[in-house]
This record gives sequence, C-alpha cells and structure tokens, in this order.
Amino acid sequence: MNIETKRHSLAHIMAQAVKEMYPNAKMAIGPDIENWFYYDFDFWNDEFKEENLKDLEKKMKKIVSQNQKFEQYDLPYVEAVKFLKEKWEDYKVEMATELKEKWIENISFYKNIMQNWNESFVDMCSWPHVDNTNKIDANAFALDKIAWAYWKWDSNKKMLTRIYAFAFDTKEELDNHIKMIEEAKRRDHRVLWEKLQLFTFDNEVGPGLPLWLPAWATMVEEIEKLAKQKEEEYGYQRVRTPHITKWELYYKSWHLPYYKESMFPSMNLDWEEYYLKPMNCPHHHKLYDAIPKSYRDLPVRFAEYGHCYRYEDSWSLFWLMRVRSLCMNDAHIYCTEEQFEDEFIKVIEMYKFYFDLFWVDKFQMRLSKHSKEWLWKKYVDNESLWIKTEEQVRSALIKTWVPFVEAEDEAAFYWPKIDVQIWSAIGREFTLATNQLDFAVPERFSLTYKDSDWSDKTPICIHRAPLSTHERLIWFLIEHFAWIFPLWLAPRQVIVVPVSDKFDSYAKKVESSLKQEWIRVTVDLSSDWLNKKVRNAEKMHINYILIVWEQEELNNSVSVRNYKTKEQKVITINEFVKEITNEISDRVK
Amino acid sequence: MNIETKRHSLAHIMAQAVKEMYPNAKMAIGPDIENWFYYDFDFWNDEFKEENLKDLEKKMKKIVSQNQKFEQYDLPYVEAVKFLKEKWEDYKVEMATELKEKWIENISFYKNIMQNWNESFVDMCSWPHVDNTNKIDANAFALDKIAWAYWKWDSNKKMLTRIYAFAFDTKEELDNHIKMIEEAKRRDHRVLWEKLQLFTFDNEVGPGLPLWLPAWATMVEEIEKLAKQKEEEYGYQRVRTPHITKWELYYKSWHLPYYKESMFPSMNLDWEEYYLKPMNCPHHHKLYDAIPKSYRDLPVRFAEYGHCYRYEDSWSLFWLMRVRSLCMNDAHIYCTEEQFEDEFIKVIEMYKFYFDLFWVDKFQMRLSKHSKEWLWKKYVDNESLWIKTEEQVRSALIKTWVPFVEAEDEAAFYWPKIDVQIWSAIGREFTLATNQLDFAVPERFSLTYKDSDWSDKTPICIHRAPLSTHERLIWFLIEHFAWIFPLWLAPRQVIVVPVSDKFDSYAKKVESSLKQEWIRVTVDLSSDWLNKKVRNAEKMHINYILIVWEQEELNNSVSVRNYKTKEQKVITINEFVKEITNEISDRVK
Repeated sequence: MNIETKRHSLAHIMAQAVKEMYPNAKMAIGPDIENWFYYDFDFWNDEFKEENLKDLEKKMKKIVSQNQKFEQYDLPYVEAVKFLKEKWEDYKVEMATELKEKWIENISFYKNIMQNWNESFVDMCSWPHVDNTNKIDANAFALDKIAWAYWKWDSNKKMLTRIYAFAFDTKEELDNHIKMIEEAKRRDHRVLWEKLQLFTFDNEVGPGLPLWLPAWATMVEEIEKLAKQKEEEYGYQRVRTPHITKWELYYKSWHLPYYKESMFPSMNLDWEEYYLKPMNCPHHHKLYDAIPKSYRDLPVRFAEYGHCYRYEDSWSLFWLMRVRSLCMNDAHIYCTEEQFEDEFIKVIEMYKFYFDLFWVDKFQMRLSKHSKEWLWKKYVDNESLWIKTEEQVRSALIKTWVPFVEAEDEAAFYWPKIDVQIWSAIGREFTLATNQLDFAVPERFSLTYKDSDWSDKTPICIHRAPLSTHERLIWFLIEHFAWIFPLWLAPRQVIVVPVSDKFDSYAKKVESSLKQEWIRVTVDLSSDWLNKKVRNAEKMHINYILIVWEQEELNNSVSVRNYKTKEQKVITINEFVKEITNEISDRVK
Repeated sequence: MNIETKRHSLAHIMAQAVKEMYPNAKMAIGPDIENWFYYDFDFWNDEFKEENLKDLEKKMKKIVSQNQKFEQYDLPYVEAVKFLKEKWEDYKVEMATELKEKWIENISFYKNIMQNWNESFVDMCSWPHVDNTNKIDANAFALDKIAWAYWKWDSNKKMLTRIYAFAFDTKEELDNHIKMIEEAKRRDHRVLWEKLQLFTFDNEVGPGLPLWLPAWATMVEEIEKLAKQKEEEYGYQRVRTPHITKWELYYKSWHLPYYKESMFPSMNLDWEEYYLKPMNCPHHHKLYDAIPKSYRDLPVRFAEYGHCYRYEDSWSLFWLMRVRSLCMNDAHIYCTEEQFEDEFIKVIEMYKFYFDLFWVDKFQMRLSKHSKEWLWKKYVDNESLWIKTEEQVRSALIKTWVPFVEAEDEAAFYWPKIDVQIWSAIGREFTLATNQLDFAVPERFSLTYKDSDWSDKTPICIHRAPLSTHERLIWFLIEHFAWIFPLWLAPRQVIVVPVSDKFDSYAKKVESSLKQEWIRVTVDLSSDWLNKKVRNAEKMHINYILIVWEQEELNNSVSVRNYKTKEQKVITINEFVKEITNEISDRVK
C-alpha cells in the first residue's frame, strides 16, 4: 500500500470531518507534498483556529476507525458541476471547469459511506484512495498546524485556511518524523530566506520562477565551479544549448508524446511550434550528431548546467521544493557497450566524492526495473535487453560498494532508472537525482559511431546529474548545514567589525587585503555598538567575524571569531588570509 | 543621405536590371546586412551564372546614370496581390500574405520610370529609397558574387540564386572595402566553423539558435571567467534571473508597447501570457526592489550573463551575425545622481581594459542624443532633463579621454545611448555594445532608496555590456585574431605529437602532466606520419605543438612549435608548463 494513497484518503477524511463540524466551510484543494499533505478550506468568517486542530484530528481518527469504504466514480463535466453547485462548492466548480478547459471531460469523485450521517460524503479527486479506512493506522497521522493561503496564489482572491497534516504507515515513523520536523523547522529555507537574502519571488515575474539575489548567485557560482573542475577532471567536455526548440525535436525524443503535461505551452513562431526545454538531452544528442564519430572518439561526455522549464500545476508549486525553472547539473555520456560499466562506475565515484564533500553519510541508490507483465504496454518490448541491461547496472552497482535497493515495475518506458536518495543531517530523505541508462533514444536520433570494423554502431547514453538542480541542492544544503555553510560555499565569508569609528580606516585596510585574495568580505561601518554589530553579523551567519581595535591596528592583526565553532583568537592579517584561503581552496568541511 | 537608403535603392535597381535581362526571373527578397546587400531571384533554369555578374553590374550602372526617379505608394492587400499575381511574382505574393497575417494591411511599393521601356518598374519594399538615382555614385557599388539559398531557409523549398553586392558613398570607400573583404574572407567565421568545430545549427532546433560545441563552450567559459573577475574587482554582485516572465513585467518596462516586434511570441500559461526575456533589465529592477535600500547601499551593481531571446525575421538571420538567442554580458548599476559620473567613468575604464586585452586599437563611443523637434513624440518631453543628462554624459566621456562623436536625434525614447564601435585588425567596423543612461524606468518600477534625510529618492540606472554578447564578441574575435586566439582563450591550447608509436606512452605522460595544470591538451595517437600529424594540428590552429622523440623522452623534454610565431625550441616539461601557465594566467596577448 502506497503511503501517498493513504495521504490522499486522509485528505478526503479531513474534508469529511471538516464538513461534519463546520457545515458552512467550502472545500478548495488538498495536495500532498513530500512527507505531508494539506487541505485549503474557506471557513465561514475564518472560524477555524489553531486551537480547533485537536478536535478535528479526533474526529478524523473516529472516521478512520469506522472502516469506511471508498468508491470511485466519474461524472461528465455538466453533471459534476451540477452536483458541486448543489453543494455550494464554488472552488470545486472552478477546478472542474479548469479541468474541462484542459480537455478532461470526465471528473473523478470519491465517495465514502458516513456511519453517523446515514449518507455518503463525496469529494472530487483523481488520485487513488484506499478501499477501506481500516488500511490506515489512526495513530500514524497527526494534524500539524494551520496557515493562510490565497486561492490560486493570487492576492486579489480569497484568503483560505490551510490545514497541514503528517501521515505515515506506523506511529513510530510519525513520532520520528515529528521529532525531525522540530529540527527541520529551525533549518527551513523558508524561515531565513528573507533575512539571509537568498532569493525572491515576484508576482509580475510569475509563480515558481525564483529570482536569485547575490547571496544565492554566489553559492551557485561556487557549485558550478566545483562541478566544472570535477567534470573536467573526469574528461567531460562543456557545451551550451538554447532554451527553446522546435516541436520536432521533442517529438522525436518522445517528450511531446509522453511528457507534454510537464512541458510549458508552445510559442507559435513563423508558423511553427516552439517549446521551452524541459530537459537537455535532445540538444546534446544533436551536438553528438554534429560531428562524425569513430570508436576512438568514445566515450564522449557532454556537460552543461542547463536551465530547464517544467510545468507544475500552480497548486503544487512550493517555494524551492517545487518550481517551474530549474538549473540542472546535466551531462550525457555516449559510450560503447564495453565501456558502459567503467563509465557508470566513474559516475557513481563522482557521486561519492560529492557526498563526502557535503558530509552526506547516508545515501542509497534505487534501481528501478521493468515488469514482465507490462512489457510492450509500459515498457519497450524487448525482455532479453531489459534483463541484460538491468544485470549490467546491478553488476556495476555491486562493484562500487554503494548501498542500493531494487524496485520492480518502476523503470521509465525505455530505460532502467537509478534514483539517488540522500538523507540530510537531521535524517530527512531527499530524492537528489536520477541516472538513466538509455539504449533507445540514441537509436531514435540515429546517433552512430564508426566501429573498428567500419560498421556503424549505436552508442549507449548515460544521463546523470549528481549535483541535481541548483534549486534542489541548495534547498537540501540549507537544511543539512542549518544555514552554516562550509566557507568555500558561504555567500558571506568574513565581516570586519571596527570597535569604534576610530578604527574604520584600519577595518577598510583589512577588508581590502582580503578582497585582493577574492575573499567575500564586507565591513560594518555603521554607528552601532560593538555588541550590536557582532549580533548583526551572527544573524547573517557570517563564517568569520574580525574585530579590530587599537591592539589589532598596532600589530596588523585581527581578533577572529569563528561563527560555527565559537572559537576566538588573535592573529595577523597575513596569517588569517593564509588560513582561510587554504580553507577555501581545499573546500574544507 | 543614409547609406542604407542607397543600398535599398540599389537592390531595387538590381531587380530592375535583372528583369530587363531575364524577363522570366522571379524576384524573392533583398535585405541589406552590415556593409552589403543581396537579392534572391528564381531564375528560369538557374540561367544566371557567376560570369553574368559583369553584364548585370553594367546594366545597373546604366540605370543609375539615367537619373531615374523613385516614387513610393501603398496598395491595400487585395490589390497588391492582384498586381503581383499579374506579374507572376509568386514569392512577393507569399511575402505580402505573410505581412497580412501580421496585420499589415497596406503593402508598400516603389516605382521608378524606366527610360528604355517607356514604362515603370515596380518592386514591393517598405524601406526608404533615394528620390532620384543621381544621389548614387555609380562607381561606389559593385556586384560581389552569387550563391544559392533556399526560399525561407527551408531545404524542402526552391533553391534560389542570391546575388551579393557592396555599396558605399564613394569609390574610395568601395575600394578599401573590397581590399578588406579579401582579408576578411580568410578570417570569416563561416569558413572555418565546421573544421574548427565551434558551433552547429540544426533544423529540428530552429534557425538562429546556435548550439555550442565544446570548443566554443570553452571560449565562452574563459570569457565569463574574465568578466566575473573584472566585475568582482569593480564591486559588482552576481545575480541570476529566469528566462521567462509574465506579460505584466514587460508591459511595465515599455518593452511590450514599444519593442514587441522584437520579442518572441507569448506562451499562454494558467490563463496568463508569458514571454521569453529579450532583455534582463526588468528582472534586475525586481531584484533591486526585493530588499529595501538606503543611500549607504548605493551604488548597487547587478551583473548577469543573461541569455535573451529576440525575434528576428527568418529572412535576416545570418550565422552568428544575426541570431535569435543571445548570451549577454549584462549589468545594471543603480546610483545616485552624484555617483553617476564616477560610475560611468568606471564603466568606460572597464571597456578600455577589455580593448587593451583584446588588442583593439581603434574604438569610438557614439553619444546618441534627443532632438528638440521630436520631444514628446519620439522622446520623453522634458528638455531640461535631456540637456542636463547629455551634458553629464559628455563631461564624463571627456574625462575618460575616450574618442567620441555625438549624434542628434538617435537616442532611445527615454534615455541617451552611448554606442560603442570598434574596428577589427583588418579595419572592419563592429557595433560592439550599447550603454544606456536610464532616468525613466527606475521611476516606472518605483525603485527607491532612503536618502540621508530619510526622504525616498529614485536611483539612476546605467545599463552596460562591455563584452557584448558571446555571439557577437566571438564573431568579432574570430575575424580580429584570424582564428589564432591568445592562449588563455584558445579552445585547443596544446597537442602532443609522438614521432612514432614507440613514444606514445611518453606522449601520454606529457599530456597528463599538462592536464594536471588544467591545460587544454590532447595527444595524437593516430598512425599518421609525423608531417601529417603536424599539418593536422596546424589545421586545427592549436597554439603549441609538442613533438616527442627519443631525445625528448630521455631528457623529460619536449620540442615546442609555436603555431603563431613559428618559433621552435626544446625545453623540459616543467619549463614548458611554467611558461604557458604564466602565459595563460596573465592572459598574455
């Protein structure tokens, strides 16, 4: 039983409980995100408050214990709207109409029989539900908190009450999760983003399209520098490709037939449809194809930090966790069958290097395989090739000593996937990236190389992105490091704090010696007292605070406070520069 | 008299001459690009050949000498098509229909009275023409060559004959240009792009959207590294912004009202129009606005290599000279009025640094000013502000000692522009970039800072892009350096050539010592003879060829050939590494 299915069912039950307790409340929308789910309601007079959460949870637990059955059925649009209007569910009517505009004519509903009402409760939903609430452990979910959210993220529209909840398979998982959440709250990228000035969203730019402020852009530059070094070391070649393309390319790559709902809508240019790229692969295939290759040229490894655009429903956009614009640490390796294992092992090596660099102790690969039953319908119908390829990947995984699990029936249509899962310092799981072994698309793109016997062969393609997207990686790193980044990555490395304005000019001198070494340093020339200045610097999580006073000026030295370790010491400017340039260039943890 | 006007008139005369000599030829299209123009014709049986150019030129000169008058008139679409169909001008019919689809209802024609036919010759054209051919010096133009071009760049359509011509104001200019063109041909980015594997275009990606191969991407990385260093040195902060935005932003920035025809068409997303960005400025304004500013924070300098998309008619797309996707060395400086001069001077300083680095000896700034006559119609109606601002720019330009000219009536609607013109090593002029002084848009975006008296003030914004776009800069550098790039910029720096396969392993050892220092090196392990290997390396314009044989292996040395100076010498690997890492890190010319 899939935990998401339980969460969808619990959202339904939350709505049922709300309607029993607050008959005037109108239901809006209730998606599930990562480990939790929420439901937005329009309460009469905003009557639902934080203190009502307990009673609502109790009511939900009661419903769960009643072994209620779920039944799914579809209604044609007209009937669906008629039904929803009778129930005064204006928001659901609006959603049904949006589905209709996207050509979804049959609207899905779930019904469960309510024992205390002698009637059924119905909610509009297309996600799978459990067949009976007895599949859910009533002790393994909990309501978390309430919040406010505009209908459709639009500040001109009604403000709704959002009820958050967690749900797991077992109570133990829930308890662990709640403990972890307490810690995660402290580390949440939404808590400090404004104070630390990492990014901003803007209504006139659009939802899901973050704008990166200098602090974020600095981190991104450092991460790209790292990736470029590492990729050069491993023999990758850098390339660059445009962000748009004609429809033909994405038709050929199977994206338009199978992935269109995740793509942005088209632009009509000179009587042709153009699309924003959701993935870089087809462009790289074109680059591979631009110059004839021989077996001597392989493996060819093309790397690009490619900025992609994916359509996510505006309901499911959520800060950096679900965005529409992603900058991806992408690369494609084209190799012969004989080279595959070696190349794949090198990719895993690179992952392990990064995990080590970022102190990620717990990680796991998940090999998603085909299912015999669904060959041809869900998977390319070539069983022997599937078995052979999966065996190749398994054998390579074993050689790398990386922990991995296997999952039947979760591959992509034409290739086995290897998902990479990592756990943050507080034990939360993130899906970092997906590797794919691609034995189908190179053929579709007629990619070839001349083999030593002068025959034309098709290369295998490995898709990989160990540093994920900037958006996902930095979201993870914020939680993982609790906002105290390693020096090389920190957007603000050093601040010089003169004890009074008498030492401003010495402070500036210190600043400029550090700047010469490309250290990210500022100086606090405000008229605040020393304590306030230090407190301000600590609030900005600056790695080193250098206090300068009479003694320091006399000795060309600085009083160093390490924000992370809280250690203090007095050393000369030169010593300090030497120490921290080493710390930066070695990317010390 | 504008030289472009003469070129448009000459294109008309070329068509007239063609129709007199080849009555069955059909006219297609004839735009002007940089210093020349061309006209595509569909000749019956492709009868026009290179050897017919002389006669055609003679005929054109005769027409020019006849003092023919030009008259412009418009026809409504229906009549225009009727007229063109009577003349069997199928291509013109197609173009008129395209104009109609773009809501241009009145089609513009030019007519001139032909003295030998006793009737008039008419061509469809919307560009201005001279009033009489006596304005044109018949000795100041020349036909250049013919070429083949598909109608609408579509290989499924008819192949047309393209006739190229040069035109200038005086014969002297023409002669100088022809001399320069001879040299430019040798340096043309279209000649060697394929062999040197810089970029590729692909039909399934779309015209005007280059895909950068590793050699190009390497150069681009080096240029960005340079820009980032320089900008950090000058106190710029890096930012990153998405490539799309809601219509509202570009409406507010005046792009949609005044610049729409150069923008890509919109995408309809969640019932809102989204646009690809043609410029980065509005996004940067949003970033400025995200955090409240005080006078102490100014100047704020945001830099981004921003990838923009501009719609150019598919007719006018031309290799790297006119593309639809541009990656721009963009930045916006927000400052107070008092800071303006200082900031502006620092921008010019940066230009001069780059000119020096790239050996650009000849350059000029062109200050485009308002015109009193057109205030309010073409320019923001605030004459005193115009005069004051232009005076500020002029005074700053004088202080930098940079050569500049002034041009009346060429400013943008709401700001004076400073165009930067540079001349390549062979004397060809390129417009590299445009700086703009913007005193209007910050107000429209309600950008403010708290001044020392606690009042809210509006900052001035300086737009600048000294390294232009990657597309334009590298196109220039290719011609300027004739494909022999300075070492730091060269995509291929070193190749190791073993004299026979006996020395392959030593060659690989040399390669790996160089790779450790991040030098871009390959080794030629082919079975070719030494001479062939050296010739191949020279064809790829690799800066250093290291030949290794018995003596070299014995002494841990290499025989170095400098491709540019043709100098040769034998030195140890270590000496060589030291020499060229210095050459790279100092960006030696």
